[in-house]
Amino acid sequence: MQSEVEVLGTQLNLLWVVIGAMLVIFMQAGFALVETGFTRAKHAAHVVSTNFAIFALGFVAFFLVGFPLAFGGFSFAGIGLAEPVGEPLIGSGNWVFLYQGGWALSTGTITPALLGFFLYMVAFMDTVATIPTGSMAERWKWSSFTIWGLFCGAIYYPLFAAWTWGGGWLSKTWDTMSLGAGYVDFAGSGVVHSVGGVAALAGAIVLGPRIGKFGADGKPRALPGHHIPMAMLGTFILLFGWFGFNAASTFAATDVQFATVATNTAIAGAFGALTAMFYITKRTGKPDPGMMINGMLAGLVAVTAPCAFIAPWAAAVIGIIAAVLAIESVFIVERKFKIDDPVGAIAVHMVNGIFGTLAVGIFANGSYGAGWNGSSSKGIEGIIKGDWGQLGAQALGVAVILGVIFPIAYGFFSIQNKFTKGGIRSAEEDELNGLDIPEMGVVAYPEFGSGRL
Amino acid sequence: MQSEVEVLGTQLNLLWVVIGAMLVIFMQAGFALVETGFTRAKHAAHVVSTNFAIFALGFVAFFLVGFPLAFGGFSFAGIGLAEPVGEPLIGSGNWVFLYQGGWALSTGTITPALLGFFLYMVAFMDTVATIPTGSMAERWKWSSFTIWGLFCGAIYYPLFAAWTWGGGWLSKTWDTMSLGAGYVDFAGSGVVHSVGGVAALAGAIVLGPRIGKFGADGKPRALPGHHIPMAMLGTFILLFGWFGFNAASTFAATDVQFATVATNTAIAGAFGALTAMFYITKRTGKPDPGMMINGMLAGLVAVTAPCAFIAPWAAAVIGIIAAVLAIESVFIVERKFKIDDPVGAIAVHMVNGIFGTLAVGIFANGSYGAGWNGSSSKGIEGIIKGDWGQLGAQALGVAVILGVIFPIAYGFFSIQNKFTKGGIRSAEEDELNGLDIPEMGVVAYPEFGSGRL
Amino acid sequence: MQSEVEVLGTQLNLLWVVIGAMLVIFMQAGFALVETGFTRAKHAAHVVSTNFAIFALGFVAFFLVGFPLAFGGFSFAGIGLAEPVGEPLIGSGNWVFLYQGGWALSTGTITPALLGFFLYMVAFMDTVATIPTGSMAERWKWSSFTIWGLFCGAIYYPLFAAWTWGGGWLSKTWDTMSLGAGYVDFAGSGVVHSVGGVAALAGAIVLGPRIGKFGADGKPRALPGHHIPMAMLGTFILLFGWFGFNAASTFAATDVQFATVATNTAIAGAFGALTAMFYITKRTGKPDPGMMINGMLAGLVAVTAPCAFIAPWAAAVIGIIAAVLAIESVFIVERKFKIDDPVGAIAVHMVNGIFGTLAVGIFANGSYGAGWNGSSSKGIEGIIKGDWGQLGAQALGVAVILGVIFPIAYGFFSIQNKFTKGGIRSAEEDELNGLDIPEMGVVAYPEFGSGRL
Repeated sequence: MQSEVEVLGTQLNLLWVVIGAMLVIFMQAGFALVETGFTRAKHAAHVVSTNFAIFALGFVAFFLVGFPLAFGGFSFAGIGLAEPVGEPLIGSGNWVFLYQGGWALSTGTITPALLGFFLYMVAFMDTVATIPTGSMAERWKWSSFTIWGLFCGAIYYPLFAAWTWGGGWLSKTWDTMSLGAGYVDFAGSGVVHSVGGVAALAGAIVLGPRIGKFGADGKPRALPGHHIPMAMLGTFILLFGWFGFNAASTFAATDVQFATVATNTAIAGAFGALTAMFYITKRTGKPDPGMMINGMLAGLVAVTAPCAFIAPWAAAVIGIIAAVLAIESVFIVERKFKIDDPVGAIAVHMVNGIFGTLAVGIFANGSYGAGWNGSSSKGIEGIIKGDWGQLGAQALGVAVILGVIFPIAYGFFSIQNKFTKGGIRSAEEDELNGLDIPEMGVVAYPEFGSGRL
Repeated sequence: MQSEVEVLGTQLNLLWVVIGAMLVIFMQAGFALVETGFTRAKHAAHVVSTNFAIFALGFVAFFLVGFPLAFGGFSFAGIGLAEPVGEPLIGSGNWVFLYQGGWALSTGTITPALLGFFLYMVAFMDTVATIPTGSMAERWKWSSFTIWGLFCGAIYYPLFAAWTWGGGWLSKTWDTMSLGAGYVDFAGSGVVHSVGGVAALAGAIVLGPRIGKFGADGKPRALPGHHIPMAMLGTFILLFGWFGFNAASTFAATDVQFATVATNTAIAGAFGALTAMFYITKRTGKPDPGMMINGMLAGLVAVTAPCAFIAPWAAAVIGIIAAVLAIESVFIVERKFKIDDPVGAIAVHMVNGIFGTLAVGIFANGSYGAGWNGSSSKGIEGIIKGDWGQLGAQALGVAVILGVIFPIAYGFFSIQNKFTKGGIRSAEEDELNGLDIPEMGVVAYPEFGSGRL
Repeated sequence: MQSEVEVLGTQLNLLWVVIGAMLVIFMQAGFALVETGFTRAKHAAHVVSTNFAIFALGFVAFFLVGFPLAFGGFSFAGIGLAEPVGEPLIGSGNWVFLYQGGWALSTGTITPALLGFFLYMVAFMDTVATIPTGSMAERWKWSSFTIWGLFCGAIYYPLFAAWTWGGGWLSKTWDTMSLGAGYVDFAGSGVVHSVGGVAALAGAIVLGPRIGKFGADGKPRALPGHHIPMAMLGTFILLFGWFGFNAASTFAATDVQFATVATNTAIAGAFGALTAMFYITKRTGKPDPGMMINGMLAGLVAVTAPCAFIAPWAAAVIGIIAAVLAIESVFIVERKFKIDDPVGAIAVHMVNGIFGTLAVGIFANGSYGAGWNGSSSKGIEGIIKGDWGQLGAQALGVAVILGVIFPIAYGFFSIQNKFTKGGIRSAEEDELNGLDIPEMGVVAYPEFGSGRL
């Protein structure tokens, strides 16, 4: 029986989760603007519409199937839970792979707390779903894209989510393999950004580069984004929403660590943006706006997993490293691997998602997370505290993302490409003229610029 | 005497209302972007400015006159009230038509709770006020528009608001006519969207269609909106703000139904957008972005009244129906009634506002709203629970909106049109050249496209 | 020892501060859009990027140096503190000028409450930092701009902040000079907007007007902003964020005055916008969108200091006066002083920041702020309550801003101009062709308008 104060605290915690969910859902606008701004006007209605429709596609699939698979109806009484308690579908004990129950939120006890938890989780799933719309922009057939949205919400995202946040096998490696507190990912550098990022990589490989991206000499050419202020507005919206993404991941306002999380998030974003500004100026002579954007986003992605476990100085260091990683990765992806990623999604989400996941095992200082590994003795500790076990757990998670999740994404796009008439890539003529008319039936700007009617 | 815990709960509730108010006020940006994106560049400064100025026009009129008429200074002690207790101006007992007191928030006891309540309510009023700026766009004389803003804030909105949320006669039909719990409208499918929607219809009729909208053969021609990404950003902002619109309508964070409301809101929006995508693709072959936008908005409008009383599956069904209703209504309004509504405001707000109002009487499952009809025996129940009384109360509300409120709106615009020199419509030459220079003195984009200098 | 209820209240208060910080950080997007929309397309990537980069520049400098100087590590236990208790660096007792400790948030006790407080304060600092990017737009060399960002975060903002909000000498004039409750500025009309505004003035003077702004006859020419909807979206974002700026400045949700503050803020903004609409229509015949924007912003700036201490009617009066002041100031700055301020930053932030600071001493009604002057007998009172002492304290603060802070800003830009090769102004050729390519390496809109490639 909760006391009156505890009841009020639980209510407040649920409010914080719902506010967090709103903010994360609003991030969809941020992704839409960044990706549209970074691409060309003749495809703008298509690009922005993929970012719009993905919200609904992923949402509906997750509502019907994905949420139960990942969390199994999650029969908990309130927000502020110690441990998820879904019903296993595949596996048991420390080795659960998928859950079941609560399909379409229509079975079991549907409490407001469960619905609030669903809302927060569906928003995270949609972040994963929208990451490939960036790397695959300007050449992705609409009908093929819609299948991805449904697949991501129903199956793709729920896999790794079940294994980690759902309480599945990767979260139990503290017990099964004595690795730290098991895989720890506070708000999803791995669960969200890496998982989305490897799908972005897989999709970009399967689609191939945009016409004109690489010259006859194999060298990449710049295809400038058509709207820099739009991309920057999108980045500010992402920064704003990221506070909900990270800080509300305490699932509790009674856990004041949310303030530490919010501040670490901002620190990493600011240091990321500033580092990118100086670093790209040193490399190319100009403070390229696109790189400043990706520097901030890289810092935010990288701090997402460790944000609750680290000191402010570590958030700054993570932001600095993330920005350099992002810029170098953009060049390597394009120049070395000849992969065309119009918005830098692979560099930002995959590379820095991995870095952030590992950063937990490096920078965690033991001040938070006591009891997460089943004992209450100490918080999450990384190698700065002399503990290599947590880094092991994180590295195992990264290995699974690269070794299991990436092949699933690659397999999905490859098989879909094979079995789709004409493949999942738009017709060459459509790509050259712009996807807006052939795919969407309208142009983004009928009165402006090269996309006009 | 409240206990310390109760005091803290009341403070938290007021905070939730104020956060809700912020979010609803931010929706003004969403409306501005959707309406501007859906119209042409040569009128863009005019369209966006009507959406900007309406906020201030309605606000000031509501502050001075409208709030007292609708809620009568609302002499309650705190947020979390059971029943409004304004001072009647016209009527008494179960038959109150207007209230009085607290003019310019300057009489009576001005508590922070009263001010928070005002802020939330003024935001709802401004939503009503801004709906006609969509259907009447591209041909509305600025000076005439300003009168609408003042009229809406001072009188038009307060009428139906007083009769329902203010505790007036429509909310008492459970007693006077034994209809369910009386008119129930959780966050305003009727009070806000239908009331705004019938004004949008009235205004569009009085203004007549834009030059060039209908050919000599009477068939409608497409006048494509000039900025699809702008409209989609606006929709995301509306989705974000809608969480405040609906979920904070619990007026309490201690009423955890806010989480159910938020989630049902998102479900209806997602299903609306997805249904619209498939439905319009089936009808026209392309996933028209404008229709996807209106599908989401239609789902959000329709779920606004029932969101607290229904199960998640019902929110999904409501979203699906709403999207189909919106698309068909767009075609019927344009093709059958030859009414020109540049943004689909009639289809989205009027039609789906009515549907949502009725949906309370259909899908309410009795889980919430116990005591609203003066007894504490059961929650709000619709026909799925075998109770037709609530649907009767809702239908009566709809009948009043169509039979009383619509004529008032139509009368207002007609009389204004008659007594305004040259009428309330812009000069033909201004409309052809764009309203920006003649009405606003500037163009939206002096360097871009067809609206340029 | 706090009771359980008190602990929960403190947690809620911290949550409110963090939510406030998010909102204020989001205002950076608003400034970016207003300033970019009000300037020309050929400079748009530069203008929006200054607004983006300033966030990071100021943040990092404030993190490392500025926060300690202003607040001295602020060794308090929780949010809801009565008085700041930093460690003096210069001065002591009632005459503290700068603080120390907590450099890089890495010394002392780093509590979540401290980090939340930092996040809120860094957001205010960044508002100051971004104000001059408006008045100095379209002709400011990027490398020189970056130095401003670091200077503002490290030293410029912390000075006046330490003297007032940090508990320094200006906040103690109730004791040293018997002036009211000492300098009182609820959310920063003075500490943020005037301080940023005088820097905007100083920078605009040192840079000189844009090429073409003044004709050979010395008369100003209009250089129209390239994107009105962008500027209006920015204004809506600022309005939204301003609720966090002002209402969360209670530092407590348990202090329900936050609702009064939020409502007074909206009232002043609405009356400001409406007044500007009527006033500029009377002056020029058209409801100029730019002036409507500046009218709303002026009302918001002016109410920022007094918002917690005044009645709603006073918020309305302040909004009305602010709008007239803003419009007249725009004309005077341009026509009389021949200063080129592309966005009206001086009129909005400096002039109305000063007005708002003084307005505390005029309109404060004694209902709030009891105990702020060391006694508990009465709240803050202005001359409407017959007390001239508070106005004296406010006037002293304004005198310090004009007589000490402005010269520091002017000195900074002058000295930087002298010691920078070629000065802090962009090359004439770059300014004529647009700063985007020479400074940023990209154009904002490669496919649109006069800024296209």
